[in-house]
Amino acid sequence: MAKRIGEQTILIESNPKIIGFASVVGKKESEGPLSKYFDETFEDTTLGQETWERSEGFLQKKAVKLALKKAGMNANKINAIFAGDLLDQCISSIFGIKEARIPFLGQFGACSTMAQTMIMSSIMIDSGAAESCIAVTSSHFCAAERQYRFPLEYGGQRTPTAQWTVTGSGAVVISKNNNNSNNSSIEHVLIGKIEDLGVKDSSNMGAAMAPAAARTIERFFLDTKTLPKDYDLILTGDLGEIGSELLKKLLKNSNFNIYDNHNDCGLMIYEREKQDVHAGGSGCGCSASTLCSIILQKMFNKEINNIIFIATGALMSPTSFQQGETIPGIAHLVHIKSAG
Amino acid sequence: MAKRIGEQTILIESNPKIIGFASVVGKKESEGPLSKYFDETFEDTTLGQETWERSEGFLQKKAVKLALKKAGMNANKINAIFAGDLLDQCISSIFGIKEARIPFLGQFGACSTMAQTMIMSSIMIDSGAAESCIAVTSSHFCAAERQYRFPLEYGGQRTPTAQWTVTGSGAVVISKNNNNSNNSSIEHVLIGKIEDLGVKDSSNMGAAMAPAAARTIERFFLDTKTLPKDYDLILTGDLGEIGSELLKKLLKNSNFNIYDNHNDCGLMIYEREKQDVHAGGSGCGCSASTLCSIILQKMFNKEINNIIFIATGALMSPTSFQQGETIPGIAHLVHIKSAG
Repeated sequence: MAKRIGEQTILIESNPKIIGFASVVGKKESEGPLSKYFDETFEDTTLGQETWERSEGFLQKKAVKLALKKAGMNANKINAIFAGDLLDQCISSIFGIKEARIPFLGQFGACSTMAQTMIMSSIMIDSGAAESCIAVTSSHFCAAERQYRFPLEYGGQRTPTAQWTVTGSGAVVISKNNNNSNNSSIEHVLIGKIEDLGVKDSSNMGAAMAPAAARTIERFFLDTKTLPKDYDLILTGDLGEIGSELLKKLLKNSNFNIYDNHNDCGLMIYEREKQDVHAGGSGCGCSASTLCSIILQKMFNKEINNIIFIATGALMSPTSFQQGETIPGIAHLVHIKSAG
Repeated sequence: MAKRIGEQTILIESNPKIIGFASVVGKKESEGPLSKYFDETFEDTTLGQETWERSEGFLQKKAVKLALKKAGMNANKINAIFAGDLLDQCISSIFGIKEARIPFLGQFGACSTMAQTMIMSSIMIDSGAAESCIAVTSSHFCAAERQYRFPLEYGGQRTPTAQWTVTGSGAVVISKNNNNSNNSSIEHVLIGKIEDLGVKDSSNMGAAMAPAAARTIERFFLDTKTLPKDYDLILTGDLGEIGSELLKKLLKNSNFNIYDNHNDCGLMIYEREKQDVHAGGSGCGCSASTLCSIILQKMFNKEINNIIFIATGALMSPTSFQQGETIPGIAHLVHIKSAG
């Protein structure tokens, strides 16, 4: 059974285990500092598909297949799959997952989707409604950029605050049944609220998402009566350089100092200057592929033992952007412990 | 605690209650046969907003407000809101709900979203992670048609198989705490699988969704060892005339006869011939506003006592449609019992 703690935190009493995880990424990501941690990398970012949307779906399909293999499970033992992506009507998830024949629940949290799908999986397992679930998400540079910003052929200039959409997918199999004593477990989750401070610049999403991240993290510390130093790592999704600086300042204003143990998937996945990604990586696939590679591997090896993972989402659509609407942000949190 | 029954059905053991429900609709819906059952109707389908997307968001905002009022609850007592719509990146839900300050989980199941949000709410309450949740969804004719089909100004001809997107929203407050002994309860839920039989015609979504509905309903009967006659009503979301006929035939082929007690929200909400809606109503708001008006009212009054509600979704996006992709279908089921 789950239990509410404080205002927004949920204790997942049964501590479901991450029994399999996998990440697959494209060429640019394979040239970055996390290269050796990914399960599979693709030189050709079309992945042999006819459209970028299909390429992205294929990334999810691959990530799910590999995560299941590493968990030693068949798809028919999975009770539900929570999947989402950045595209209109979650279309890459639908086409990527449809052949898996697993009960499907489409999730939309923009770049916060990896945390959202892990939260839903954990709660569902804790309720007894499922033994095992999959959480998966993805993004693809070419599919996202042309949908949200400019046609790829246009070769638009990127502002210094812009982030580079990761081509990648990450998937985890979460289960009440533990197949390896080294598996990490889900301890707490926190579902974020929508925060809208009026940012309208789709090339500065770090700024749009940082306030939501700050609120979620602060709420978690207050609810659980813990402090930043209680965690080995405070890992945000894809705030990039601008958003990360904002987050640290915002939390410092609330007397929570995360300068020593914060990192951001958007800063980890590329060598920013050398790979010319400006403020860092972004996209659902950024936090998904970073979490499901270096982070969960280091937790499995007990090199890191206690983390909070806060995936952040910029809740915009091509339509809302064209209409001059603001970009509300959201941040969901998952507290993960290694078996160590 | 929830419990898995058979292959896909989930018993919601704590039987959470529907403690408030509300529906708001536009002009055309207010002229239809369910007119007197809606909580609020709008003559001006702009609802005083600048864009159709904002109008749709406003419908959700209104439905949530009314459902909370009828439940006698404040928004700050709600632990999570599950919301979704038809538009790109669930944008109407985001802008409609953002000011409510409730932990937010965006859901995408196309027209199956009302069942999906109710399923998630029920499981979350059953797990102990929430005391009360809101499930809400909407659609708006003008926002949906121009996104999925033709610019409104174009005045395109509609085929006989086309359905009319409902302008409306429905919201339910589901809670473990019962405020009225007449409240209906959630008994079972079933999460559907994606079914893709290759339909590509976005003006024949009944045909795209019927196979998924048939599979979900058949699975539920098999899992629970019940028969169609055990239910007062088998209510599908928005299959319309074509999809409903297909569903009944498909189930008859599997030896389940639902001819006597099936109805479809897409057939109930309009007078088809008089209101010129061709095959019937559709859109997330179709099943949401029908369920949250006549159906839940009749259950509250114990005129109907035992129903299965199967909302069906056509999982397409403007991008996938333009790329000539198929339209996969999905159907989620909620088994609701009156207090009678």
